[in-house]
Amino acid sequence: MPKPLQPHPDRALPAGEARDLARRIHRSTKDLPLLCLHGHVDANLFAADEAFGNPADLLVVPDHYVTRMLISQGVAPDRLGLPRRDGKPAAEPREIWREFCSHWHLLRATPSRYWLEHEFAEVLGLTVAPSAETADALYDEISARLAQPDFRPRALLDTFNIELISTTDAATDDLAPHAKVAADLPGRVIPTFRPDAVAYVDRPGWSDLIQRLGELADTDTTTYAGFLQALRQRRQAFIAAGARATDHGHFSAAATPLSDAEGERIYANALRGEVTAEDTAAFAGDMLFQMATMSAEDGLVMQLHPGVLRDHHPDIHATYGPDQGHDIPVATEFTRSLRPVLERFGHVEGFRLVLFTVDETVYSRELAPLAGVYPTVRLGAPWWFLDSPDGMRRFRELVTETAGFYNTSGFVDDTRAYLSIPARHDLARRIDAGYLANLVLEHRLDEDDAFEVAKDLAYNLAKDTYLS
Amino acid sequence: MPKPLQPHPDRALPAGEARDLARRIHRSTKDLPLLCLHGHVDANLFAADEAFGNPADLLVVPDHYVTRMLISQGVAPDRLGLPRRDGKPAAEPREIWREFCSHWHLLRATPSRYWLEHEFAEVLGLTVAPSAETADALYDEISARLAQPDFRPRALLDTFNIELISTTDAATDDLAPHAKVAADLPGRVIPTFRPDAVAYVDRPGWSDLIQRLGELADTDTTTYAGFLQALRQRRQAFIAAGARATDHGHFSAAATPLSDAEGERIYANALRGEVTAEDTAAFAGDMLFQMATMSAEDGLVMQLHPGVLRDHHPDIHATYGPDQGHDIPVATEFTRSLRPVLERFGHVEGFRLVLFTVDETVYSRELAPLAGVYPTVRLGAPWWFLDSPDGMRRFRELVTETAGFYNTSGFVDDTRAYLSIPARHDLARRIDAGYLANLVLEHRLDEDDAFEVAKDLAYNLAKDTYLS
Amino acid sequence: MPKPLQPHPDRALPAGEARDLARRIHRSTKDLPLLCLHGHVDANLFAADEAFGNPADLLVVPDHYVTRMLISQGVAPDRLGLPRRDGKPAAEPREIWREFCSHWHLLRATPSRYWLEHEFAEVLGLTVAPSAETADALYDEISARLAQPDFRPRALLDTFNIELISTTDAATDDLAPHAKVAADLPGRVIPTFRPDAVAYVDRPGWSDLIQRLGELADTDTTTYAGFLQALRQRRQAFIAAGARATDHGHFSAAATPLSDAEGERIYANALRGEVTAEDTAAFAGDMLFQMATMSAEDGLVMQLHPGVLRDHHPDIHATYGPDQGHDIPVATEFTRSLRPVLERFGHVEGFRLVLFTVDETVYSRELAPLAGVYPTVRLGAPWWFLDSPDGMRRFRELVTETAGFYNTSGFVDDTRAYLSIPARHDLARRIDAGYLANLVLEHRLDEDDAFEVAKDLAYNLAKDTYLS
Repeated sequence: MPKPLQPHPDRALPAGEARDLARRIHRSTKDLPLLCLHGHVDANLFAADEAFGNPADLLVVPDHYVTRMLISQGVAPDRLGLPRRDGKPAAEPREIWREFCSHWHLLRATPSRYWLEHEFAEVLGLTVAPSAETADALYDEISARLAQPDFRPRALLDTFNIELISTTDAATDDLAPHAKVAADLPGRVIPTFRPDAVAYVDRPGWSDLIQRLGELADTDTTTYAGFLQALRQRRQAFIAAGARATDHGHFSAAATPLSDAEGERIYANALRGEVTAEDTAAFAGDMLFQMATMSAEDGLVMQLHPGVLRDHHPDIHATYGPDQGHDIPVATEFTRSLRPVLERFGHVEGFRLVLFTVDETVYSRELAPLAGVYPTVRLGAPWWFLDSPDGMRRFRELVTETAGFYNTSGFVDDTRAYLSIPARHDLARRIDAGYLANLVLEHRLDEDDAFEVAKDLAYNLAKDTYLS
Repeated sequence: MPKPLQPHPDRALPAGEARDLARRIHRSTKDLPLLCLHGHVDANLFAADEAFGNPADLLVVPDHYVTRMLISQGVAPDRLGLPRRDGKPAAEPREIWREFCSHWHLLRATPSRYWLEHEFAEVLGLTVAPSAETADALYDEISARLAQPDFRPRALLDTFNIELISTTDAATDDLAPHAKVAADLPGRVIPTFRPDAVAYVDRPGWSDLIQRLGELADTDTTTYAGFLQALRQRRQAFIAAGARATDHGHFSAAATPLSDAEGERIYANALRGEVTAEDTAAFAGDMLFQMATMSAEDGLVMQLHPGVLRDHHPDIHATYGPDQGHDIPVATEFTRSLRPVLERFGHVEGFRLVLFTVDETVYSRELAPLAGVYPTVRLGAPWWFLDSPDGMRRFRELVTETAGFYNTSGFVDDTRAYLSIPARHDLARRIDAGYLANLVLEHRLDEDDAFEVAKDLAYNLAKDTYLS
Repeated sequence: MPKPLQPHPDRALPAGEARDLARRIHRSTKDLPLLCLHGHVDANLFAADEAFGNPADLLVVPDHYVTRMLISQGVAPDRLGLPRRDGKPAAEPREIWREFCSHWHLLRATPSRYWLEHEFAEVLGLTVAPSAETADALYDEISARLAQPDFRPRALLDTFNIELISTTDAATDDLAPHAKVAADLPGRVIPTFRPDAVAYVDRPGWSDLIQRLGELADTDTTTYAGFLQALRQRRQAFIAAGARATDHGHFSAAATPLSDAEGERIYANALRGEVTAEDTAAFAGDMLFQMATMSAEDGLVMQLHPGVLRDHHPDIHATYGPDQGHDIPVATEFTRSLRPVLERFGHVEGFRLVLFTVDETVYSRELAPLAGVYPTVRLGAPWWFLDSPDGMRRFRELVTETAGFYNTSGFVDDTRAYLSIPARHDLARRIDAGYLANLVLEHRLDEDDAFEVAKDLAYNLAKDTYLS
């Protein structure tokens, strides 16, 4: 007898006295349009607008939240279809799907479980839970669903009530897919400028990227000054394609500018393939400062999410490449690190900096105090590992009393998993509804204010932060 | 139709099952006298005992919790009347008040909102909430109230049920206002010795202060030994004026003594205007150790609250001076930093050290373990940004299980905002009532013990920590 | 009228709506056998199987949770019978007991209070609470109970429903007590290999231990290579005695291997009594890596609990020795520190690493992400100061969403206090029951899953982590 799949209408709302009000608050926000202004869905998805492949390739292989949990319990990466750099064939999609279904219990009480149940029930219309026994039937049922025309990526924009979605694109991306989408759906899918790959001079292939950057920007990038000029031009190209923001996934939040001479020295050395760890870090810090400078000029919202040691396991990285779940956070500092940027731009109108973290210790200690005084700083939504019921609740509890609601940026889904977008927004709206309901019940917030704030958190603040 | 202002009788008490007991516990503590043994109200207020000025100067301009929140949402500091060092006129009080009222929503779910509602309703007798529409009427209503004789600072001591209040005074303060108050209200307003300004040799004007210190102490302060002797004498003057404690707002908790030779060297250099960052930090660390040494001798309770990077934005500091909301916490370490002091004085009878932090990560990791074994160490109440409903709740949850209740120092209001004092004590008593009620309902504390502990937290522990 | 001692049947369960389900979940786990796979009960206790001494020596003197709290409130260590290194007599047992009873209120809302109430009521059958008035009667009543034959250590194994208990034993322990117990109770009391004393080359007496190690292992330990070989042999002796795990209480989690030459150099210097702080730390880091290497070979589960500055107060240490409550945590780093071990062994089948911390900041930032991807890593139960109702609840809330349930190791009691073992397991089972019940009520976990998970947390995961 397979277990039914029935996400409860009150899921992730508080139990007890606060539930009724939380339910009413959630009801007032759940149908607001989705602003997806920080995410990692591939622009090609919308450009091609083809049917999705199979359940494994859509729901398992690219979701590192899911694959990392299965790997952590001994499932070999090859069994989950992680694409190998050596081109050796991965497991068959149906096999991957069976692995996933038979380990469904591992996801208990994780946000992945919540998102997937939502996707399965509300997006895909499934009615039984994954298990070893139900795997094949579910595979067939999902496959049939994916073949339907109303399940194409563009059609889902309407189904999902997505008003606007932004992708994340390298500085060296030519934005061709965006041009194609914009021709059909003007202003609905926009790029975000992410120059990380050219900011770290020690990355393999860096000088090739620099050359590519120069070609795209039609600028001589053999000098540091030319490099900065090329970045300025690429930002303009992104703006022309609708971009509203940049995105910076640096290891550290350090943002200290280099002198021009130092910048030139490191840059020239890097082009010759001579880089040290110190120079790499100094150059990355300079890049953050340069990006802030350019944001103050061109108005792109600057998003920073530092503090992750990428590719913790070299063999996994060598075999399967980056973004395979082996990125581990480290303690992160903001107060001193961002000071050069905030000294210069912290009170400059038109500059805007949105800060993310995977180190919760900075919420009350550094981020809320910074956002609670600098008019240019907003706090991004709980990020990555923290984008979970308890994670989002802690975020509110740790920042609101110092930064208030209006120095937060609104929810961002931050996902590559297109199908999970409605679930992610809905979960955030539920958690915020519960948080607000509790405040009302403790007489720390008026009920009418709670309804107004709920709409602000769900929709208005994202609009104000990124689109105003 | 203006929105009524009605702080709920059950505000900040837990919802649900625990409320009734929390209410009864709060009822048992709410009328206990207030011991205000760590705060920043100006002694001149009580010496002059004049009517307060206008609503803006009383309630907005000096409250950096409020001004920072408005500044963070784009209100210019000049519009809020922050006094400029260049003497240019600020906005008119009524204009400032209008700015404040029209941004009232920014304070939602912040402790400022809670305190101000309490002040407005219970101290000032207002009945409608601030808004752009009600600003002028409220301004006039408050102004009238401020002119009444029962609203003079000394009269409010009785109204507020303040048994004893301490101010914070520089080592170079002559304590004249205290002498004046003590003549009329003996033992009710006492100073606290705060030598920070002379502890940091790199502060502008340091050598002038040193000279002033020498004059006041009638001691030659051209040597390090003389400097220490002058501090000893000033401490005696403070004790004669009723002081029970010292207060140290250092950047770091480092408290490593210098050799006499090193102390003399840095001191002599500093008098010649030659200071390095390293020497400044080393001297500040020495000062903490010297202050501990003197506390062990003269019995003044030593209060330490480290970990704030002051004046994060140089232009704001240059234009408006210190304490304008741009002080941002940093990660702080206590275990190793305080070891020199605790090795020497940690088990010395008569020494007492009260520790504050704005870095919550040390509550369970360092502070509770330290206070839970050293008989000389007590944990100060949640400080600054953490003096909030959720902040105070987290404090109890993170320290009680290791340090118990009796190694905490009791509540301190730590405010410059005289009118907020009853609200701050009341909020703390409500949060403690809720915390205790929840423990009782989870059968982790007996009900009769909860009532006893509530009185200890609200009154007895402050008395025991500072006055025993 | 003495206060009755009646631990409530619902103690430590959530109040409100979740209680009923929490109660039912707890009922389903409370009688499961206890697996005590990480603890510090002395093996001699079971080898000798003699009657316990007196109440003070059993319940007060060796319990540093209790003595530290009394010391923190001014009770002199001598009054609590802390054994002095100079051999001066301590207080009489009955005097010690009176001190303890008259300070019973200091333990309010601490886990010690909870554990002791459980022991007093359910193990010792007491019916009145400790107080100055009841101290003598309780002393006599407990003494009588301790004299009964069913109160011998071995008999209590059955009374307590302990299926298996592991002790902690130095690398230089000859395991003679274990041999004696194993002859009578095969497989029920097993050792754990703890080589800390030989890992820190700066500890007084280190070279004596090295000699003893060589004798026990019948190996020449005058070289580093011989030292490692001796450790390998001792591990085999422990395995032969039933050991399943090693235990490492390092100051830091740093685990970087030394070159053979560096290892030899430091080792040779240490044997000559020449050690530096840097070499000591580097050697300790190497030892962790070597222990991981050996675990990957011999299958012993590697347990690491770093981050405590031992013996914070030198005089206390000089007078009373180690483990007297003056061990204070420091901030601890895992992501970078453990990388050398995880690069090499993180995906190696047969290796298993269980991580503990007293720095809660790493739960969500480092530990859950590490355990949530590396198949060899599990998260140990909340440790030491965090082994408390709120501490255990925070652990679940901070790790489950990223690491799930199945990357945690199951409960370990980690105690020297034999009588407290049932109370500790019971408290953990209650907290987990409450956590799970809340998830169910918030519709974040299915009810049938909650019952299954509860059994896994209470029993199966410990078995799987240590015994599979």
